[in-house]
Amino acid sequence: MNVTVRGRTQHFRTVAYDAAKHSVLLIEQRLLPHEFKIVGTKDFRETAAAIRDMIVRGAGAIGAAAAFGLLQGAEAFRGKDLKKFSAHVENVYQTLKAARPTAVDPVNAMNQVRAQMRLGADVEIQKLLAFAAANEFARENVRHCEAIGRHGSKLIRNGMNILTHCNAGWLAFVDVGTATAPMYAAQAAGKKFHVFCDETRPRSQGATLTAWELSQQKISHQIIADNAAGHLMQRGEIDLVIVGSDRTLGRTGEVTNKIGTYAKAVLAARHKVPFYVAIPLSTIDWKLKSGLKIPIEERSENEVLGAWGVLADGHHLPPKRRRAFVQVANPTSGARNPGFDVTPPELISGIITPAGIFKPKELWKFRRELGFAD
Amino acid sequence: MNVTVRGRTQHFRTVAYDAAKHSVLLIEQRLLPHEFKIVGTKDFRETAAAIRDMIVRGAGAIGAAAAFGLLQGAEAFRGKDLKKFSAHVENVYQTLKAARPTAVDPVNAMNQVRAQMRLGADVEIQKLLAFAAANEFARENVRHCEAIGRHGSKLIRNGMNILTHCNAGWLAFVDVGTATAPMYAAQAAGKKFHVFCDETRPRSQGATLTAWELSQQKISHQIIADNAAGHLMQRGEIDLVIVGSDRTLGRTGEVTNKIGTYAKAVLAARHKVPFYVAIPLSTIDWKLKSGLKIPIEERSENEVLGAWGVLADGHHLPPKRRRAFVQVANPTSGARNPGFDVTPPELISGIITPAGIFKPKELWKFRRELGFAD
Repeated sequence: MNVTVRGRTQHFRTVAYDAAKHSVLLIEQRLLPHEFKIVGTKDFRETAAAIRDMIVRGAGAIGAAAAFGLLQGAEAFRGKDLKKFSAHVENVYQTLKAARPTAVDPVNAMNQVRAQMRLGADVEIQKLLAFAAANEFARENVRHCEAIGRHGSKLIRNGMNILTHCNAGWLAFVDVGTATAPMYAAQAAGKKFHVFCDETRPRSQGATLTAWELSQQKISHQIIADNAAGHLMQRGEIDLVIVGSDRTLGRTGEVTNKIGTYAKAVLAARHKVPFYVAIPLSTIDWKLKSGLKIPIEERSENEVLGAWGVLADGHHLPPKRRRAFVQVANPTSGARNPGFDVTPPELISGIITPAGIFKPKELWKFRRELGFAD
Repeated sequence: MNVTVRGRTQHFRTVAYDAAKHSVLLIEQRLLPHEFKIVGTKDFRETAAAIRDMIVRGAGAIGAAAAFGLLQGAEAFRGKDLKKFSAHVENVYQTLKAARPTAVDPVNAMNQVRAQMRLGADVEIQKLLAFAAANEFARENVRHCEAIGRHGSKLIRNGMNILTHCNAGWLAFVDVGTATAPMYAAQAAGKKFHVFCDETRPRSQGATLTAWELSQQKISHQIIADNAAGHLMQRGEIDLVIVGSDRTLGRTGEVTNKIGTYAKAVLAARHKVPFYVAIPLSTIDWKLKSGLKIPIEERSENEVLGAWGVLADGHHLPPKRRRAFVQVANPTSGARNPGFDVTPPELISGIITPAGIFKPKELWKFRRELGFAD
């Protein structure tokens, strides 16, 4: 999407490949929203490090980074020995996989690239197939997000106030995003609306990433404390909620998303505010039979006990030295920090997918259309 | 309540009067939880400044500070001319009132002291009556909180997990507090329980003040992001919610409290978790007929856009220089920051008052017992 750097507005993707330099280009997301910088990795090891160190984050984005990383690794191979090449590619694959061992997207993306490569009879053809497949993975990711945007934008009417939680924006994908896709499509269609971004403590992705995206895209928005959504709904100031999902159960329609999503869904149901979840098909889990079985990651206490930002009175410092973590909480207290929660289907008005909008309990019925493979 | 300073545990009150030095003693709350310090004001002007600058905050605490400030001002008068004395006291009264012009507690407290003073025939007797009345105001504040504790502690059973929001603890009163009073009483009765403190963004009073109180009092507790309560309720990890109130409508049973209280009440109702509000009688508004008429203060955007704390890597700095504000949010985004919300009576299991526990809609029926004066 658009980013304005020194007065000049350009289109960027979160993840791209520089074919001339064999380099994966990534937005350095750890610096956002205070600094915008593109980094180019010089080899697959650097790409793996970028995934591990969260220079790039978000399901679709790390999938594409891994696909391009595999391509980058394959292209670096010198020689014609297919057996040695395959061993080398296996090593690249394992290195990239190990960068985020619990994430499924890098593995799925690399499997897609490798399946294409195996159709080639020699090293050079396999490299070309890898190039085509990695680029196709990224293009498909964008097409899916654009399709979510087309379907979801129909929900947005002029003058609406929309609430979103966390970041399911273009920074989490190759471009466009999921929860933000309907907003970008509605804007392109000339609709006027306002977005409330939940701050999304403890990691503040709403206040940092989503707010940055919307401001770059010139969409009217304000940040609110996670505590404020209920009050705004009471006063009729929220007309629609759109969030993303980390894992959606295809059998039950339950949605796992960033902690606090469930509370917003409960409030929306009470106030009859439509609550939609925008998802890429890859996050549908067709196996699990109950949301209670979804393991909820307990994250570091420190995230709750303080906050990352830039020193407000540090204008004399270089950007890097302005970044600081402040301990907010009482230093002798501990914290509980569940990273996600599960929203049951009865609180969800609809699931916006690239294939259309479905009631959460209809996902199973339409499983073939939604890419279920048994 | 108890505070441990350099290994020694002592009992402190939030507000006290040093009769020998004619000084109001206050806990410097702006330094908590990172530093504990008692300041003594040397005259009523300093006391007014302490109220204005929020060295002391919380309804009961600023009431007592104003009552003692009035006493302090009266005691500083030299001479026997009752007319000049009365003019001087009026000046003291106005100065203290102007320190927090929208707060009702300082005015109520000072009116109580002044009504007693007027029973005295000369300056010296009026000074003695002021001393007695200001001290009685503080004592009554403590007695009321203790009574809330006695009634509320019956709700707490061994092994319970209790959620609280914001700070309605002893730091907001002269001692004991309201939402915390049942916990302190239950602890004194030997009950074991665990408290989850909502962080309470944007000002984080739960993570700073409530967590500090509970840790000083050695009550088992953890801080959670405001987003986490719904998930914990889903998993059956919260058995009881107790919060305070800034304004309770005696006619309707609606409760105004820190932003985010309403969301917790909605979640508690969904999960059938008892939701109680502990209040001093002074916060009951007997006039207003609808919660929709309660003006909700919109506070500074900056509170939402960043966080105050101490620099985590600033151990080499003196405490004062370690304090820092970090800008967390995207710097070109704005914020909405409503300070309070209104919880309707149907979501409230009971109101814990010094006179007992009432259903919110029963307040009006028991208005005489609850101090209603027409």
